[in-house]
Amino acid sequence: MYLRSLLDVAELNLPTISSDRLAGMAGVNAAKVRKDLSYLGTYGTRGVGYDVEYLLYQISRELGLTQDWPVVIVGVGNLGSALANYGGFTRRGFRVVALFDIDPRKVGTAVDGLRILALDDLEAVVAEAGVSIAVLTTPAGAAQAVADRLVSAGISSILNFAPTVVSVPEHVHLRKVDLSMELQILSFYQQREAGILSASTLGPRSA
Amino acid sequence: MYLRSLLDVAELNLPTISSDRLAGMAGVNAAKVRKDLSYLGTYGTRGVGYDVEYLLYQISRELGLTQDWPVVIVGVGNLGSALANYGGFTRRGFRVVALFDIDPRKVGTAVDGLRILALDDLEAVVAEAGVSIAVLTTPAGAAQAVADRLVSAGISSILNFAPTVVSVPEHVHLRKVDLSMELQILSFYQQREAGILSASTLGPRSA
Repeated sequence: MYLRSLLDVAELNLPTISSDRLAGMAGVNAAKVRKDLSYLGTYGTRGVGYDVEYLLYQISRELGLTQDWPVVIVGVGNLGSALANYGGFTRRGFRVVALFDIDPRKVGTAVDGLRILALDDLEAVVAEAGVSIAVLTTPAGAAQAVADRLVSAGISSILNFAPTVVSVPEHVHLRKVDLSMELQILSFYQQREAGILSASTLGPRSA
Repeated sequence: MYLRSLLDVAELNLPTISSDRLAGMAGVNAAKVRKDLSYLGTYGTRGVGYDVEYLLYQISRELGLTQDWPVVIVGVGNLGSALANYGGFTRRGFRVVALFDIDPRKVGTAVDGLRILALDDLEAVVAEAGVSIAVLTTPAGAAQAVADRLVSAGISSILNFAPTVVSVPEHVHLRKVDLSMELQILSFYQQREAGILSASTLGPRSA
């Protein structure tokens, strides 16, 4: 959350940020910001705050974002294509090295200069480019089989965008992205404003 | 997070879930789960846990997901198209009522049975369908102008997928989706396992 907040601040070309403001953006209090950032060896300047660029660098380094992470995307539908040229990936060090699909009509074509390969080439690409992270954007029905294959090929982190639950061995990191999560947060606020919720069902949070 | 965890559990066809397990999935402790859920008037059965379906209903209702939320998507590139037929939206009550684009070659064509309309039709659709939530999937350069137009048309919640910062008046809810967020979490664990981080830079968290 700090990284995300700082990237927003950097886009506004603000050179410094106070712990108060960063706390507000990240949804915590200023004391927590100062404590968390002290682990990075960073202490803001009283009355000035933190240097945005330097703090961005420190947090990025801590998260492993200052190094290059080759990534493969499996499943080149609309979402896979959108992610193939998502600027946010490259800015954070995630470089898409190959796209894969099982559809023979797609294999051999290109998205943003990246050739779509057949799944049979997976093992070779993973080994050659030293890929450890895969993005799974297949339809739900194909997700588990593809995940198994990714694991066999040596992938150790999978980001699952397929709308289904996928199982992987314990040594593999798996995270699931739910694109409707943020919509749910918006609808909660909409509903609350519309007065549909009674004060009592909100309980202590409405205090 | 509770909703997301419960949806995963429901897909596995488990009828009940313990506060311990739900706590583990949501990243909190069991006491917090029991306290949070007590605000919904829900208390699990000792030795059995919570009824998954009923708890899902209660949380969905609290979040406003048991009602129908008409949504418009503006910007029909790959991401907009992917979201237009994203199953996760409809399952949570978000019904895409219209797609909009400024490209005259796209206007009049359809994605998954939804016609792409010109931005000039925005005000009429928002008023007719009672739309309060818009999903912004334009390129970065167009995002602010479109956001302004959405606000003028009466939209009060915007979910911004465009890779840029957008400003809205204070009464409008705005949330930004960063598709690389989860990749960053994966790379952090990858890096830590690779031993690139020294124990000291992790500070107290490595204890």
